Amino acid sequence: MKKIYVGMLGCGTVGTGVAKILIRRKALIESRLGASLILKRIADIDIQRDRNIFFDEGVLTTDAQKVVDDPLIDIVVEMIGGVGVAKDLILKAIRNGKQIVTANKALLAVHGPELFKASEANHADLAFEASVGGCMPIIKSLRESLIANQIMEMTGILNGTCNFILSKITADNSTFHEALAIAQAKGFAETDPALDVGGFDTAHKLAILSALAYGTEINYNDIYIEGITLITPLDIVFAREFGYKIKLLAISKNRGDTADVRVHPAMIPFDNLLSEINGSLNAIKVVGDAVGDIILYGHGAGMMPTASAVISDIVDLARNLLTGATGRIPALSFQTNAIKKIPVLPIDKIRTHYYFRFAAIDQPGVLSKIAGVLGDHNISIKSVHQKGRKSEGAVPVVMLTHIAQEASVKKALAEISALEIVSGKPVLIRIEDKNGEDDNQVRKPV
Amino acid sequence: MKKIYVGMLGCGTVGTGVAKILIRRKALIESRLGASLILKRIADIDIQRDRNIFFDEGVLTTDAQKVVDDPLIDIVVEMIGGVGVAKDLILKAIRNGKQIVTANKALLAVHGPELFKASEANHADLAFEASVGGCMPIIKSLRESLIANQIMEMTGILNGTCNFILSKITADNSTFHEALAIAQAKGFAETDPALDVGGFDTAHKLAILSALAYGTEINYNDIYIEGITLITPLDIVFAREFGYKIKLLAISKNRGDTADVRVHPAMIPFDNLLSEINGSLNAIKVVGDAVGDIILYGHGAGMMPTASAVISDIVDLARNLLTGATGRIPALSFQTNAIKKIPVLPIDKIRTHYYFRFAAIDQPGVLSKIAGVLGDHNISIKSVHQKGRKSEGAVPVVMLTHIAQEASVKKALAEISALEIVSGKPVLIRIEDKNGEDDNQVRKPV
Repeated sequence: MKKIYVGMLGCGTVGTGVAKILIRRKALIESRLGASLILKRIADIDIQRDRNIFFDEGVLTTDAQKVVDDPLIDIVVEMIGGVGVAKDLILKAIRNGKQIVTANKALLAVHGPELFKASEANHADLAFEASVGGCMPIIKSLRESLIANQIMEMTGILNGTCNFILSKITADNSTFHEALAIAQAKGFAETDPALDVGGFDTAHKLAILSALAYGTEINYNDIYIEGITLITPLDIVFAREFGYKIKLLAISKNRGDTADVRVHPAMIPFDNLLSEINGSLNAIKVVGDAVGDIILYGHGAGMMPTASAVISDIVDLARNLLTGATGRIPALSFQTNAIKKIPVLPIDKIRTHYYFRFAAIDQPGVLSKIAGVLGDHNISIKSVHQKGRKSEGAVPVVMLTHIAQEASVKKALAEISALEIVSGKPVLIRIEDKNGEDDNQVRKPV
Repeated sequence: MKKIYVGMLGCGTVGTGVAKILIRRKALIESRLGASLILKRIADIDIQRDRNIFFDEGVLTTDAQKVVDDPLIDIVVEMIGGVGVAKDLILKAIRNGKQIVTANKALLAVHGPELFKASEANHADLAFEASVGGCMPIIKSLRESLIANQIMEMTGILNGTCNFILSKITADNSTFHEALAIAQAKGFAETDPALDVGGFDTAHKLAILSALAYGTEINYNDIYIEGITLITPLDIVFAREFGYKIKLLAISKNRGDTADVRVHPAMIPFDNLLSEINGSLNAIKVVGDAVGDIILYGHGAGMMPTASAVISDIVDLARNLLTGATGRIPALSFQTNAIKKIPVLPIDKIRTHYYFRFAAIDQPGVLSKIAGVLGDHNISIKSVHQKGRKSEGAVPVVMLTHIAQEASVKKALAEISALEIVSGKPVLIRIEDKNGEDDNQVRKPV
């Protein structure tokens, strides 16, 4: 049986899962691949830690160069994470003729163009299924299964930590900080949760998906990112009364000459299946012009689900090596000469439905003053709730709007904040409703 | 730009969709594939019908041999359906060195082994993504994305017609025949709906999925199949009261030495996402030992969604041709020499939860008599409802059981039917509950 040699950089949680599957599911993989995957060398700064795996002598090393420089190794799996040493090692491995598998979304979101250019120049494959959505085959679906489609839209719950926290606040009426503490205690959230709860991890993933879907380079820094730290149980309760759940959404819409790409908490109606995705699970809805809606759902993180995606990439690249088909599919789904530069729509220009909550003095005329300012900015109110719940001496006034433009909304909210009858900063949550205005300029039937 | 020539056998609904995408999305496909797909010839018995596509002269023919014998054609797409002429044409095309794409689940379920043997002997690819689940990439997911997993279980809603009918009965309290008539009027159901409502189409699909998932040959005739024709609004109402919805399920469980593969209406709890799949949509849940649960959801039928899956296969095979990698992935997911014969568990041997409905005379002692017979057969009752709803002079007595064996259940129901206090045939609906007994013998952590 032919042998394909695998080297791994970093052996943390997911790397350990990859090693376990390669060693303990060797026969299963061989029965499918028709060749043997040999885990030849693993570099990690900590080679003493008990990983509950038996490694042959000489497999573990602290010297990453022994992986990228080993002439026998065919495929290098980068499991270090971060945008520092991982990048240099991948570039060296590519120059040394290796095929690359990585799950490093931050690296791809920030340095993707450089890495993909290097891999293409060296006729190397660079696979990254595990970088988005854990075990959900979203990369493969975009690059292969949906190839007949113009992708119109993607909406995803792509960060299990945020979804766990929001589900917890929703279920138990706990505060953000209480829910975060539980997530940390359960091991769902990092000690420094900023990358997750700030929405940045979700944005890294969305940058990758948008590039693949539309055939464009997406500048990560152009993506509007808003995290979940300011979400309160009060807004979750109001959302429910209006028939919505609050989720941290990755939103990407193909508008032809621009791409509307953003990450923020959003209200979604109960009859949207994404509203049913609770706990640390992930899901993504993709709308294609031929397929309509498809949804993928599964564990977006965790040792074994993510390792499963890494192995699927290793096997894909092994199959290319075995048949001499390296480079069979362009890494970014489109031929390099077909990749366009589609600008990201600035957040001020988006048009959507909004939820506002104001803390207002409980006296007659308040509503008319607020509504007056909104009217001045062409923002039309769909419904109002003013239930007299006392919070910090003021009454919450809650409003849903018809479609409005973000720039006008910001101006109106600034004016309303300045009114004496309103205290504190108004709360703004965008609504992703299916009966929204269809701004999509490329949706033409085949 | 390199050219790959495509020939098509049959140009009905899906075939027309395939032609539309190949012609109208030519530039999009080229920008991803890096080569041109040329639709060279289409054979259909009706070449006069207006398909709303402009075909070049000579593309349409009534002679199928002109497709399979054309030396220039690389890929033959079989869109005829059925198990007759389609099989002969595919075998001839394979012998002529063509690559094959088909969506013909009936053919694959019944003659799969012969076709796959022929394609392997001729080093030809035979792709069939569109045969199951329309646009959902379930075949690719099983063959590629989940390769690191032992597949433990699959549960699917795989027939849009049945799901539409059951959703309609659930929403409107209509009878099966009323709902079927609406499905037919809307074009969701064939004039002869037996293949769909009898569960046979679902079983064809499940046979294919089970073979791919477990690496086994599944004899379609061994699959227990029960359709939806006997489902009544009354049972749907009772199901709802117990917290369940009724769906036609494709169920496949890997028990190591046997495979529990069956198609029948089943009650599933509200918190199972599959219970939310309504109308003509399809969904499938796959449980793998590494990934846990993943769910795919989308349009399981229809011109464009199915055509999208066919095109993804055409592009896959074109990529293999362009890189000389034909045969890159074994058609049945496992290497031929690794395929085992796992017998299908006879339905009498399954163990699950049950719902029974008896039409009983409304008098004291009835319940004790029925319960007595069940007890004699080791069937333990979990809950009973006897609400005094009059139906044809008798009162419906409804019971849910703990885990019981099908053989015992059948004997008990036969005895209960014979009681004078019971009229008509008892209704039996199996329950797929997540808190069921775990008979799975292969579920070991990696």
